[in-house]
Amino acid sequence: MKVSVAGARGRMGSQAVAAVEAAADLQLVAALGRGDDLAAAQGSDVLVDLTVPDQVMGNVEQALARGMHVVTGTTGFTPERVAQVERWAAAAQRNVLIATNFGIGAVLVMQLAAKAARFFESVEVVELHHPGKVDAPSGSAIRTAQLIARAREAAGLGPSPDATETSLPGARGAVVDGIHVHAVRMRGMTAHQEVVLGGPGETLTIRDDTYDRAAYMPGLLVGIRQVASRPGVTVGLEHYLDLD
Amino acid sequence: MKVSVAGARGRMGSQAVAAVEAAADLQLVAALGRGDDLAAAQGSDVLVDLTVPDQVMGNVEQALARGMHVVTGTTGFTPERVAQVERWAAAAQRNVLIATNFGIGAVLVMQLAAKAARFFESVEVVELHHPGKVDAPSGSAIRTAQLIARAREAAGLGPSPDATETSLPGARGAVVDGIHVHAVRMRGMTAHQEVVLGGPGETLTIRDDTYDRAAYMPGLLVGIRQVASRPGVTVGLEHYLDLD
Amino acid sequence: MKVSVAGARGRMGSQAVAAVEAAADLQLVAALGRGDDLAAAQGSDVLVDLTVPDQVMGNVEQALARGMHVVTGTTGFTPERVAQVERWAAAAQRNVLIATNFGIGAVLVMQLAAKAARFFESVEVVELHHPGKVDAPSGSAIRTAQLIARAREAAGLGPSPDATETSLPGARGAVVDGIHVHAVRMRGMTAHQEVVLGGPGETLTIRDDTYDRAAYMPGLLVGIRQVASRPGVTVGLEHYLDLD
Amino acid sequence: MKVSVAGARGRMGSQAVAAVEAAADLQLVAALGRGDDLAAAQGSDVLVDLTVPDQVMGNVEQALARGMHVVTGTTGFTPERVAQVERWAAAAQRNVLIATNFGIGAVLVMQLAAKAARFFESVEVVELHHPGKVDAPSGSAIRTAQLIARAREAAGLGPSPDATETSLPGARGAVVDGIHVHAVRMRGMTAHQEVVLGGPGETLTIRDDTYDRAAYMPGLLVGIRQVASRPGVTVGLEHYLDLD
Repeated sequence: MKVSVAGARGRMGSQAVAAVEAAADLQLVAALGRGDDLAAAQGSDVLVDLTVPDQVMGNVEQALARGMHVVTGTTGFTPERVAQVERWAAAAQRNVLIATNFGIGAVLVMQLAAKAARFFESVEVVELHHPGKVDAPSGSAIRTAQLIARAREAAGLGPSPDATETSLPGARGAVVDGIHVHAVRMRGMTAHQEVVLGGPGETLTIRDDTYDRAAYMPGLLVGIRQVASRPGVTVGLEHYLDLD
Repeated sequence: MKVSVAGARGRMGSQAVAAVEAAADLQLVAALGRGDDLAAAQGSDVLVDLTVPDQVMGNVEQALARGMHVVTGTTGFTPERVAQVERWAAAAQRNVLIATNFGIGAVLVMQLAAKAARFFESVEVVELHHPGKVDAPSGSAIRTAQLIARAREAAGLGPSPDATETSLPGARGAVVDGIHVHAVRMRGMTAHQEVVLGGPGETLTIRDDTYDRAAYMPGLLVGIRQVASRPGVTVGLEHYLDLD
Repeated sequence: MKVSVAGARGRMGSQAVAAVEAAADLQLVAALGRGDDLAAAQGSDVLVDLTVPDQVMGNVEQALARGMHVVTGTTGFTPERVAQVERWAAAAQRNVLIATNFGIGAVLVMQLAAKAARFFESVEVVELHHPGKVDAPSGSAIRTAQLIARAREAAGLGPSPDATETSLPGARGAVVDGIHVHAVRMRGMTAHQEVVLGGPGETLTIRDDTYDRAAYMPGLLVGIRQVASRPGVTVGLEHYLDLD
Repeated sequence: MKVSVAGARGRMGSQAVAAVEAAADLQLVAALGRGDDLAAAQGSDVLVDLTVPDQVMGNVEQALARGMHVVTGTTGFTPERVAQVERWAAAAQRNVLIATNFGIGAVLVMQLAAKAARFFESVEVVELHHPGKVDAPSGSAIRTAQLIARAREAAGLGPSPDATETSLPGARGAVVDGIHVHAVRMRGMTAHQEVVLGGPGETLTIRDDTYDRAAYMPGLLVGIRQVASRPGVTVGLEHYLDLD
């Protein structure tokens, strides 16, 4: 399978180039930096786009027009952008994977927690990140809480039990769709998330510890290898993992 | 739904009686101790058998003949016994759930770890139990390792990487179907299991902490409520959890 | 050593009676319930008071006057009450231990975290309790944060690094003397506390999991055995643990 | 304070050079590679030696003779070598710190676990490392077990309770001075150690996660800043941490 990478000089992109080169079943056609012409990727089966929001749409349009499937980890895909990509993909009869998180462990925490959620009275989310992170809680933690809330609602579960009467402000965390979410900021950490679920006499803990960008490469390779066989536009790596 | 409990004076049985009585949708018909006649359970939809290996087969045969479904957590179900139960169940057109572990968290650790296994190069199992336990590793840990090994094999994964050249005897744990399993014995603990999975730059941890027999009641109630709609004989609570 | 227990019918008290009876070096003189006369304890070396705030002062006064040392886990010791006990103890030349937490693990988390605090840029506290708890964060977590804050200040450390710019309310927890504290409420848990400390490339985690009132007995026995040799009034079991 | 680094081209050494340059109170005199003359370090208060066993003794001898204190993380210090360094240091009236582990968290796990050990019936050690490690258990885990065993012996504690009758080979780990030690090898991990201690109804867990060589720099800086005021030859960073 022939692969090109756009955004190849970035931190994610340079690791992606190395990962493609190291994979026996993949062949690197072009490693494109900002301003490089996508024509150099001609003949690729898949374009990996790891650029920035103001470049990605042009790249996706061109790559699809040139007959490539696209795997992108670039941020900024609003519903409008996704709808536009769907039109282009349909016209080109090519497929697209849009994923904001290629960490398989991080994706699994969300998906497994959502699967487990309906069996437990209580659930809370604790995310822990490096102290340079500007938002709290993390986007992943918010999405995890939303998935859990949806699973609990479908199972007819009400709120987790909580008798708190007096509390210092913030002690019980942020509340996302009824789920309590706590954000820790810690030197030495990178990106971590833990979901704790509890019923009478037992707790279940599901935790991801991500310490290095290398963690995103196995998931990216899953995307590259499968995009040709996954029709249409897919949002979220989890849909390629066949967890059900 | 009408429910009777055999083995109702035992530690699990007495909690089961209380759990049935506490459930709004269940009605307790009889709480039977050793020597009590199963006729007292007549009219029950479900018999819960929490007795001992030398009583359970007689109870199952009678309960099925009396038109009840059966949920049992009694140990000692050899393949021959299961085959016998299948014949009785088919003749009576009633269903049976045989489960050695009703802890939903404990079952989920196994099932979720098996689902996650194919995505990670490395995996090991650590189980931790009270110091009065006579076998190591636990039956659950052995079964977890077997499920993981099967999932890795299906995914074409070889052994987890391990460069160990010099080792104190036992340091790397027991090896079950190629999976390393470590058993900790600790005052203050009850029954705990952790599966750690690792790939480049990240680890995923799935852990169950069971501190009280109460942990088995939610799973038992799942069994009671579903056995009527699950045809035939089912071995393992996981098949009632619809995780897929 | 001869020991009596006041509050012997309570949940802590009945376990204390059993623990004293089980200890080869201790002899139970009297197990006193509400309204029982302290005269029955005459001849004891130590009175253990596990009563309620409106009984404890009378018991302490009488026990000291009768020549006993006192170990109490009863709550409500204001600075004024402590000062009063100090006067009585000095007059009687007997000793008193006042402790709100006899869990050695719980006390060690605080003390070890305070010892470690000056070596790490970042520190946060996560406490996890059963969902019936009415206050958040726990008193232990607040005290832990205060001890850590004092240790950091003594070491000249400023605030833990934190670049958070946008946050959902509560996401970053409560702030106690500059230390972020998060409170989780979870069915299946009892009383748990974790302190996470981080520096470049590493984190240190110190955690206590308390699942049963039995956890308070070893600390109570430490108090009983040592109170005779610890002059004056001591507040906090940690001073008997000789951690320095 | 003026500092030179020998072994400055190695992985540890290059980070040490950067750490010294980044420290406002330290001034880098010379960064020496293999074959460079130690004369270039003349005038330094402290020589940091991060070389190899066949170079370190020559460097230490010369540095002491030139009036420098020495901090070394080089391995291979047998009792004979330490005795030799003590003679040189006494003659030169300079001080030396020999440490095999400059990770403060890793050192704290050992020291805090040893402090806590006498309060708990049960204790086991779990170490987790990258899969390229050739020995199991790690040297740190062995030393941790030895320190714990010594603390338990001093407190009159016998072996941890363990009713195991049937075991798969290795399940209960290696036994070091009576302490069970388990070694996990996991892609994605670097160097981690966890000590679990248990008594009735509670457990205490002390854990270090080291993910990056950067973790050794804060401890190295402690060594550099303190060696001038710590008379003689000290083996082990813990003696500079004033934990008592």
